[in-house]
Amino acid sequence: MNITVTKKALTDALSLLERVIPTRSSNPLLTALHVAATDSGLTLSGTSLEIDLQATVPAEVKAPEDFTVPAHLFAQVVRNLGGELVELTLSGAELTVRSAGSDFKLQTGDRDSYPPLTFPDAPGVSLSAADLARALGSVRYAASNEAFQAVFRGLKLERNAGTLRAAASDGYRVALCDVRSDAPEAPPLIIPARSVDELLRLLKDGTVRLLPGEGQLTVITDRARMNLKLLDGDFPDYERVIPKEIKLTATLPAAALKEAVGRVAVLADKNANNRVEFLIQDGALTLTAEGDYGRAQDTLSVTQGGTEQAMSLAFNARHVLDALGAIDGDVRLSFSGSTSPAVFEPAGDSGYRAVMVTLRA
Amino acid sequence: MNITVTKKALTDALSLLERVIPTRSSNPLLTALHVAATDSGLTLSGTSLEIDLQATVPAEVKAPEDFTVPAHLFAQVVRNLGGELVELTLSGAELTVRSAGSDFKLQTGDRDSYPPLTFPDAPGVSLSAADLARALGSVRYAASNEAFQAVFRGLKLERNAGTLRAAASDGYRVALCDVRSDAPEAPPLIIPARSVDELLRLLKDGTVRLLPGEGQLTVITDRARMNLKLLDGDFPDYERVIPKEIKLTATLPAAALKEAVGRVAVLADKNANNRVEFLIQDGALTLTAEGDYGRAQDTLSVTQGGTEQAMSLAFNARHVLDALGAIDGDVRLSFSGSTSPAVFEPAGDSGYRAVMVTLRA
Repeated sequence: MNITVTKKALTDALSLLERVIPTRSSNPLLTALHVAATDSGLTLSGTSLEIDLQATVPAEVKAPEDFTVPAHLFAQVVRNLGGELVELTLSGAELTVRSAGSDFKLQTGDRDSYPPLTFPDAPGVSLSAADLARALGSVRYAASNEAFQAVFRGLKLERNAGTLRAAASDGYRVALCDVRSDAPEAPPLIIPARSVDELLRLLKDGTVRLLPGEGQLTVITDRARMNLKLLDGDFPDYERVIPKEIKLTATLPAAALKEAVGRVAVLADKNANNRVEFLIQDGALTLTAEGDYGRAQDTLSVTQGGTEQAMSLAFNARHVLDALGAIDGDVRLSFSGSTSPAVFEPAGDSGYRAVMVTLRA
Repeated sequence: MNITVTKKALTDALSLLERVIPTRSSNPLLTALHVAATDSGLTLSGTSLEIDLQATVPAEVKAPEDFTVPAHLFAQVVRNLGGELVELTLSGAELTVRSAGSDFKLQTGDRDSYPPLTFPDAPGVSLSAADLARALGSVRYAASNEAFQAVFRGLKLERNAGTLRAAASDGYRVALCDVRSDAPEAPPLIIPARSVDELLRLLKDGTVRLLPGEGQLTVITDRARMNLKLLDGDFPDYERVIPKEIKLTATLPAAALKEAVGRVAVLADKNANNRVEFLIQDGALTLTAEGDYGRAQDTLSVTQGGTEQAMSLAFNARHVLDALGAIDGDVRLSFSGSTSPAVFEPAGDSGYRAVMVTLRA
């Protein structure tokens, strides 16, 4: 076999696979990368058991062949090569990697023991990759990395008529993002948040196909396929915490609010949920925080609306900053009362909303 | 008191002090920043007991005053302020920090208990700050961070007639850098390597004054003063490991050698000193490394010199990369034998030399 491939294409594909394939495992087979060379190029595959990933790389292949190599070592070797073209030659169990003045001989693994990875193919549901990335990427922060309940460590993908909605919650806050979709209505899927992080790396441009299967979702882009294990369980009914009757709104540049909250949070008490007080009154938002070392106050102009003249609430500064992360331009804060959840969303209609509980007085 | 200072000048000075003042200490006084406001501006001081640092900041001061504040909290508050000007007002034990729409009230500390820091002043020895930075910065890597013998954790500053030399060694390698100096001959000083890291941050442009004292060195720049505790002990006699009779030289671009060594080192055995073999022969340098997963080889063209036709040696790849770090352009490798130390230095005369022991066959 003799394979010629560009270093750039190979490195790009390996950088995706490197994140999925574990560096260490009690089963060393799992640390391997499977490479299949065919007339249509190279197919690189790997799995973390939670995620199966397969990436295709254009290559000139003289004779079809397949082998496994230690994934992270191979990626490190390729990344450090000096030339633009990489030549791969398999001779027995030894893989030769050549480029410019370099010559690497790597021991390949036992390809027959490598678990076969299957990636279903079907038309599925087509969607803009950028839209799916925006929906998942905007709400990812609100999922918990540690919560006891598994569904809080997942993102819910709701497939409604005309709309695809991503939702995440850790029990204290909810983030929602709606994007347009022509797909028919279908049951929701819950994807582990950590798998969403890897999926987001695949979603660049063009369209993406979603193929839900038994306990897994297959995602197909033009250069990669990914199987994601889904979570079981009932996602909490977040609709009931979204306030219906808004009594006061305040609109201001999101960047100014981010900076001011970050500023006063320096003095907020880490042991009291990083508590920051919001007082809206007379067209101004006054933020205050107090801790062991002193007291901070910041005042910002806002465009005030609604029936109430003033309102005072407290939030976890960390949660406020997270909620503002996905908002550019102006943010609209909507309040229904001092002890009811509040909504932070872009002043324009972007489909994104953050709902946050207030801290008790 | 009412002090007006630019956020930029205050932040620059605080960023230096923040690195020296500990974030936590069994003696909370040491985590404080001392601020003295006088007609000539603000003087900020702090100490890690190893290093005393004082920085001056131009400021408009209405009435002289001094106070202490928690250093890291104060720096974080100032860094996050929104305005370009910062107003400081002391009222009793409370410091008010105001800028744009922000108003911070910070508790100050007990200024009377703060240990007085004294910075000697005298003409001392003047030197170009850039030269001193180059000398110390080039050899810093060769000092050990962990060695049992304290002198190996220090940098030796030799004051010879016409030359200032910085030297560092961890027992396996020596790095030397000579710069011109008009200062008279004087006994050498040994500065802890970790203190050198902080000193390097002070050395930008202009001249610097060195004032050696009893067990300490005071360094004065136009915006800061630093006392550095010196190390006692005898620095090893490194002169005897520098090879005198060079039998073979090889000259090549340092960048190409760095890349090639980094490349083959991927396969080098971490448990065998990251061993990389160098073979110089027929105008070529061949690098090889071998480990559990395979074998790597890289070939580079070199300009060969000296009386011997070929030589084969082995080095720790990590040490080779460290030695090349301070070299731009071409590097000249000088060898006196397979088991004798080798010298790596810039092909032009820069005053920098790295001497490395070879690994046994």
